Amino acid sequence: MRTRAAVALEAGKPLEIMDVNLEGPKAGEVLVEIKATGLCHTDDFTLSGADPEGLFPAILGHEGAGVVLEVGEGVTSVKPGDHVIPLYTPECRECEYCLNPKTNLCQAIRSTQGRGLMPDGTSRFSMLDGTPILHYMGCSTFSNHTVLPEIAVAKIHPDAPFDKVCYIGCGVTTGIGAVINTAKVEIGSRAIVFGLGGIGLNVIQGLRMAGADQIVGVDLNPDKAVMAKRFGMTDFVNPTEVEGDLVAYLVDLTKGGADYTFDATGNVQVMRAALESAHKGWGESIIIGVAPAGAEISTRPFQLVTGRSWRGTAFGGARGRTDVPKIVDWYMEGKIEIDPMITHTMPLEDINKGFELMHSGESIRSVVIY
Amino acid sequence: MRTRAAVALEAGKPLEIMDVNLEGPKAGEVLVEIKATGLCHTDDFTLSGADPEGLFPAILGHEGAGVVLEVGEGVTSVKPGDHVIPLYTPECRECEYCLNPKTNLCQAIRSTQGRGLMPDGTSRFSMLDGTPILHYMGCSTFSNHTVLPEIAVAKIHPDAPFDKVCYIGCGVTTGIGAVINTAKVEIGSRAIVFGLGGIGLNVIQGLRMAGADQIVGVDLNPDKAVMAKRFGMTDFVNPTEVEGDLVAYLVDLTKGGADYTFDATGNVQVMRAALESAHKGWGESIIIGVAPAGAEISTRPFQLVTGRSWRGTAFGGARGRTDVPKIVDWYMEGKIEIDPMITHTMPLEDINKGFELMHSGESIRSVVIY
Repeated sequence: MRTRAAVALEAGKPLEIMDVNLEGPKAGEVLVEIKATGLCHTDDFTLSGADPEGLFPAILGHEGAGVVLEVGEGVTSVKPGDHVIPLYTPECRECEYCLNPKTNLCQAIRSTQGRGLMPDGTSRFSMLDGTPILHYMGCSTFSNHTVLPEIAVAKIHPDAPFDKVCYIGCGVTTGIGAVINTAKVEIGSRAIVFGLGGIGLNVIQGLRMAGADQIVGVDLNPDKAVMAKRFGMTDFVNPTEVEGDLVAYLVDLTKGGADYTFDATGNVQVMRAALESAHKGWGESIIIGVAPAGAEISTRPFQLVTGRSWRGTAFGGARGRTDVPKIVDWYMEGKIEIDPMITHTMPLEDINKGFELMHSGESIRSVVIY
Repeated sequence: MRTRAAVALEAGKPLEIMDVNLEGPKAGEVLVEIKATGLCHTDDFTLSGADPEGLFPAILGHEGAGVVLEVGEGVTSVKPGDHVIPLYTPECRECEYCLNPKTNLCQAIRSTQGRGLMPDGTSRFSMLDGTPILHYMGCSTFSNHTVLPEIAVAKIHPDAPFDKVCYIGCGVTTGIGAVINTAKVEIGSRAIVFGLGGIGLNVIQGLRMAGADQIVGVDLNPDKAVMAKRFGMTDFVNPTEVEGDLVAYLVDLTKGGADYTFDATGNVQVMRAALESAHKGWGESIIIGVAPAGAEISTRPFQLVTGRSWRGTAFGGARGRTDVPKIVDWYMEGKIEIDPMITHTMPLEDINKGFELMHSGESIRSVVIY
């Protein structure tokens, strides 16, 4: 079939909107009509050329929602008409990782996914002249139609609005999941969130759900405070307004350090501050942000020997097929908010404008509606 | 009273054996006759002058065992005649830290202890000319008699041999505790231990107790392998004999990385290798070793985002008054071994020879017997 897609032809260039060929689903695969997709910093990171694992030409996008149109041989868990969210972290429920309760990093299709291919080692996308186009993060939601492995789709509530719950495909789950799956924050905890963008806001609402007593938000941009307060932030700190050492200030503000700190910036200096503002004896710091290629975190080992833990999270520690439908239900039940974070919507033709809004800091999340 | 002690008069000089004055116990304190004390790398670190928090003149030593001779006003948990192990990490059972099950770092007397003083801000030791001598780590076991806060003594089995169980005052508890309290290693785990000295060997016997399936020991000195095997090591790796990257070799040897890795070297490069040879998705790396002042650990944050945890431990996460008596009992019941690790004993007069044996790598542990 033919479909309409925004294609990343090469690094550093705007996406090009074009018709592309899409082969139907093979065994164990499903064809999904994408109804909406968010624009995430990871897409931008790859498009910029800064991602050392970025491959071109490719169809980016990994934060979508849509409807199953067709299923390949052997597919049993979804059927045409089901509403789904594509999963860049699949859940096969059979590999060594899926069977270990400590991780969500299913490895079933990792090697082909990392090369922009379906599990059989080929791509379903091609240009009209036949040139293959690579998949991206196993999703490629910047195409109106895409093919996904069955283990990489989460079946969701049929009434959930695509243009909102697409955000659960990455940002919402990453932020909330970091709190509830990775950190396992307890009621009454004190927490600090560094970076109040699309991930940080979801960390904040995760902390509110978890019953944290103090939720400190840290951002250089004071405009971020209004929205963050709406999602549950109790204290705002602008590092440029702190006299002296930021870590000492935060330790004091949280009465000895936070029980949990979260980096949602991707800046390795901020990651260090996040660790060091965790409470001596038991504070845990969770890295969510993606750092530039080659960047390294560092600290004195004494910080760990005196009881702080340094950890990380990918996709919020969520097992996609199991946890994503639950988070959609939480949205439908009003337990979490998404609508205010989706600040801009646009048709596919205007997708590059969405990236401009991201760069200028005007948007929290832009969503392309097909 | 007068007692005999090895005094650290200044950094970088040998200890001087001399008679010193010791005031009796004040309220909440106990007078202990030290019967035996181990010589630990931490004593050597402070004596060398490399410890930025080292203070002089002081009576070092923190790995002892002895008998209570006298108790101060209000002391109820021990009485004269009780056998005890001094605790450099006390356990008041009342502070915010003692009441938090996630940590063992009792803070009740930390500020005075860090300044070489008893909780009332004074020292019990002085030279015969009246010059005060500082306490060290709240213990000062290089004196035949010492005064300790009640919360810093663990009452132990009365038949336990002092010249063996003194080692439980630091090395044994630190190594075994890192496994059972900090890492909480599960039966069937794979583990890697970096550094097969006095701490590393105890990590290994802790892993054996915990039922680890694979216990890899890493050391530059092949002579360490014999003893390590005796304590439970299943695989020995000498980094100088590994072609190519050590981390890749260890990941392969442990079928994807170890569930738990332990640094018992204090070398920050080794700490990095320990983290990076932990299993993707769930591997935890525990720092035990004390790094040189100013040294920093570093890694790519991707190591954490893909599921590894970087943690540390002090005194093996043990609550001294509660856990040290249990470990002594384990020794008495034959559940753990200590005797083969105590390779040298000597009278107090020869204590400097004990440090020479440490420097030359000839000893695992030297013990001074009073």
